[in-house]
Amino acid sequence: MTPTLNDIRQAAERIKPYAHRTPVLTNQNLNEKVGTQVFLKCENLQKVGAFKFRGACNAVYSLTDKEAARGVCTHSSGNHAQALALAAKMRGIPAYIVMPNNAPSVKKNAVAGYGGLITFCEPTLEARESTLDRIRIETGATMVHPYNDERVIAGQGTAALELLEDVPDLDVVIAPVGGGGLLSGTSIAATELKKGIRVIAGEPEMADDAFRSMQAGKIIPSVNPKTIADGLLTSLGTLTFPIVRERVEQIVTVSEAGIIETMKFIWERAKIIIEPSSAVAVGVLWEKKINLRGLEVGVILSGGNVDLGKLPW
Amino acid sequence: MTPTLNDIRQAAERIKPYAHRTPVLTNQNLNEKVGTQVFLKCENLQKVGAFKFRGACNAVYSLTDKEAARGVCTHSSGNHAQALALAAKMRGIPAYIVMPNNAPSVKKNAVAGYGGLITFCEPTLEARESTLDRIRIETGATMVHPYNDERVIAGQGTAALELLEDVPDLDVVIAPVGGGGLLSGTSIAATELKKGIRVIAGEPEMADDAFRSMQAGKIIPSVNPKTIADGLLTSLGTLTFPIVRERVEQIVTVSEAGIIETMKFIWERAKIIIEPSSAVAVGVLWEKKINLRGLEVGVILSGGNVDLGKLPW
Repeated sequence: MTPTLNDIRQAAERIKPYAHRTPVLTNQNLNEKVGTQVFLKCENLQKVGAFKFRGACNAVYSLTDKEAARGVCTHSSGNHAQALALAAKMRGIPAYIVMPNNAPSVKKNAVAGYGGLITFCEPTLEARESTLDRIRIETGATMVHPYNDERVIAGQGTAALELLEDVPDLDVVIAPVGGGGLLSGTSIAATELKKGIRVIAGEPEMADDAFRSMQAGKIIPSVNPKTIADGLLTSLGTLTFPIVRERVEQIVTVSEAGIIETMKFIWERAKIIIEPSSAVAVGVLWEKKINLRGLEVGVILSGGNVDLGKLPW
Repeated sequence: MTPTLNDIRQAAERIKPYAHRTPVLTNQNLNEKVGTQVFLKCENLQKVGAFKFRGACNAVYSLTDKEAARGVCTHSSGNHAQALALAAKMRGIPAYIVMPNNAPSVKKNAVAGYGGLITFCEPTLEARESTLDRIRIETGATMVHPYNDERVIAGQGTAALELLEDVPDLDVVIAPVGGGGLLSGTSIAATELKKGIRVIAGEPEMADDAFRSMQAGKIIPSVNPKTIADGLLTSLGTLTFPIVRERVEQIVTVSEAGIIETMKFIWERAKIIIEPSSAVAVGVLWEKKINLRGLEVGVILSGGNVDLGKLPW
């Protein structure tokens, strides 16, 4: 059930009419600061402002017409919910989104704005799962997990596929890791496309469950992590962990101060809005815990969804 | 002395090794909001964060080796000074920049950071001009005016050249207007490349000297304008005014509130950092004073240089 490079290529064809081919930007100031040649794959400029649209779109358009007619469902209050709602809207099918009743109104509005059909529940994992189960049984909708789903992983891998088409000589690819969907897809695409390429993940020091899972050789769940990188709070899944373990060289943790400094530098110098989770990936270069000097490094910027009224500086 | 399309094509070849070919982005939310199909030419992602690098780079690389050896000079405290300093640094020649002694330290540091040789003077036009004259005589450096210079105008026109290569079917191109360098280059490139294309300028209501100049048929100087779009404070020049008058359909003024709303919308939805002057161009669509419904509209985003510590919301 692990997606192959071929699955990623098929996903790329499938989502091509709907997703942006995002630009790859370079910035001399950043290169000088970190001592490497950096290529930023701008998923912050993707639809819904995040790579999540790739996976959701691939999942939605992988369904047969009969399956699709019954819709899709998920529980999420973040970018995945928006991405699934938009992909479903494009295909003209319902997206049932279960959200905790204490989700910020900006997130509710975003999902509703893309036509998602929201059901609120108590803010516990049990309530979310039981509510989602009920909706799935009532509607026959297909569940699309935010990361532990091969269609989603294959979709997320299309970002690295495009990056390596544009910059074939990369020595290293860096992606952030939360649940591992982006990292899994990235690592499959990169290692299959280029022998010897190194795939490295960035993770917040304050939510270092993937780092610890790699050390332990088993999934160590994340327990109440507190980091500004709110897209990276989840733990690796049963599908993503083995892929990460097999294909990712190492997971490098990044401090909260490093995340914020990096984010501000990219805003100021590269003139693009990145969310803290994106800054975690660039932060691997910024903090220089590992020596990548002189190499060509591709970095997947996960997204750009930030509340402009609450900036951390 | 008016640049031709051929001058712009030559400029494009000349600056190609040094300048970014900036991406053209689309955004569905923006299209729905303004009722047109918008193509954003992202000069905020250009070197030094502004289109100004194109003109400065073309001017610097147009010089003979003998001329170049004596350097270039200008008086400016803004993006042009940074752009000229960087272009000169790339060619390995000195850039003498005259700045008022009350310029913000962030601007001084930026110019110095690109290797510009700064001479401070009293903050009056007379002091600037006499200081610049003295330096020019002492050094033999070539003066590069921020906009009233055909090499600079030709360089600025390369943004529209690229835009129309990427999106040949545009009905309209919009650029902001201050001194008119960008608008002149844009209007020459666009009207020469595509018969019948409409070129429209955006100007702050609070600095509407170009609008009034067009009405009056002569240059009406700007007197102490106060607008958040601090890149658009200057008046049209003797070289730019006739070009604008001949090739630009109309100048549309944009309110301060419209500039700020548009700027915030682009940050939030398109995930790119644009400065208020860029928002003036998009603001033409936002405020809907003219009906461009259903058309394909290219917008030149002038730059992304903003103080993140002083956001207007």
